[in-house]
Amino acid sequence: MKLKDEEKHDRLLAAAVTVLAKGGMANFSTTKVARLAGIPQSNLYIYFQNKQALLEAVYRMTVHQQSVAVVAALKEQEPLTTQIVASVRALYQFAIAQPETVTAIQTLLDDIKLKHKWGLKRDDLANQRIQQLLQDGVDQHVLRATDQNFLRYFLARPVFHYADGVRVGLYSDTPEALADLTAMIMGAVLQPDVYRAWYLERD
Amino acid sequence: MKLKDEEKHDRLLAAAVTVLAKGGMANFSTTKVARLAGIPQSNLYIYFQNKQALLEAVYRMTVHQQSVAVVAALKEQEPLTTQIVASVRALYQFAIAQPETVTAIQTLLDDIKLKHKWGLKRDDLANQRIQQLLQDGVDQHVLRATDQNFLRYFLARPVFHYADGVRVGLYSDTPEALADLTAMIMGAVLQPDVYRAWYLERD
Repeated sequence: MKLKDEEKHDRLLAAAVTVLAKGGMANFSTTKVARLAGIPQSNLYIYFQNKQALLEAVYRMTVHQQSVAVVAALKEQEPLTTQIVASVRALYQFAIAQPETVTAIQTLLDDIKLKHKWGLKRDDLANQRIQQLLQDGVDQHVLRATDQNFLRYFLARPVFHYADGVRVGLYSDTPEALADLTAMIMGAVLQPDVYRAWYLERD
Repeated sequence: MKLKDEEKHDRLLAAAVTVLAKGGMANFSTTKVARLAGIPQSNLYIYFQNKQALLEAVYRMTVHQQSVAVVAALKEQEPLTTQIVASVRALYQFAIAQPETVTAIQTLLDDIKLKHKWGLKRDDLANQRIQQLLQDGVDQHVLRATDQNFLRYFLARPVFHYADGVRVGLYSDTPEALADLTAMIMGAVLQPDVYRAWYLERD
């Protein structure tokens, strides 16, 4: 077996993100990824056993990048509602800055079967931090006591939709539009009484 | 020009829905659609000028089918909040019954640029009825006064996500899960005071 090369490993992952973002799941192949990365396809298998392993690596990497971007905006001493608003804003900035990464994440999440199979990422500390935030939110009766997948869905997907819409001119990139979107997300995820208090006090 | 044949026209549209649902936008081609429909590709162009025209026809047909399913569940004499809840339930049943149609709609909506260009469907009376419901909701201060695209997004996409999740076993198909989802959607789209009143009085 050839020696692994971290730079090539990362180049393959980056190429995989691009192939996935441009062509979707049905078009994804290790042939295309290797070609885009400029690495012989046979060498790709040194790094990733097969297409599924490559997709799973893309999933872990992109979710980690997204989690890191969100966690950087969280301040533990702040109220949970403030942290959730900060996470929406951070996710929006991440989606605007990294459109291919976010498209790849959405493509992978849409293939719910895969996500279901892959499950949680125990070694992803940033992602763990977000899971803990959600769990704390439920335990403290700030977030609704429902399936955590529902909470994660409402906290992320509308933000990606808004960023996509800004990119093509469907939405305007204004503080007012982001504030509207944030209020809708908070209405969806917060306990009704907590939402009301937050809504009346927000600036 | 050969005589058009309504049955062939519909067969091509149905094949286009399947090709779109299975392979996504990047894989979509008139070659694949003609092959699946069992109609020579040259004949496809009798019905649809080009790929874009075929995609637009798919968009109009699937959105119309979705609109008809929703409108059938609306009772004009009922309060707007009751009608909105009924629309969520109807959309869920539609998504469970017509998974390919709903996947095709989502694929087309994700290509926001296309949707933006196609704009509204003035001759689709069922869709008009839903637009009117949303406009009435905003005018009567029941729905939030925000971009109607935000309202439509929150009213439909989480329902499709839930139906997809039920199909692969991520979510359970229970009245409780659908009630949770409905409450989250209502929290997102209703004016905060209207939401509070609805939430306290719901059965």
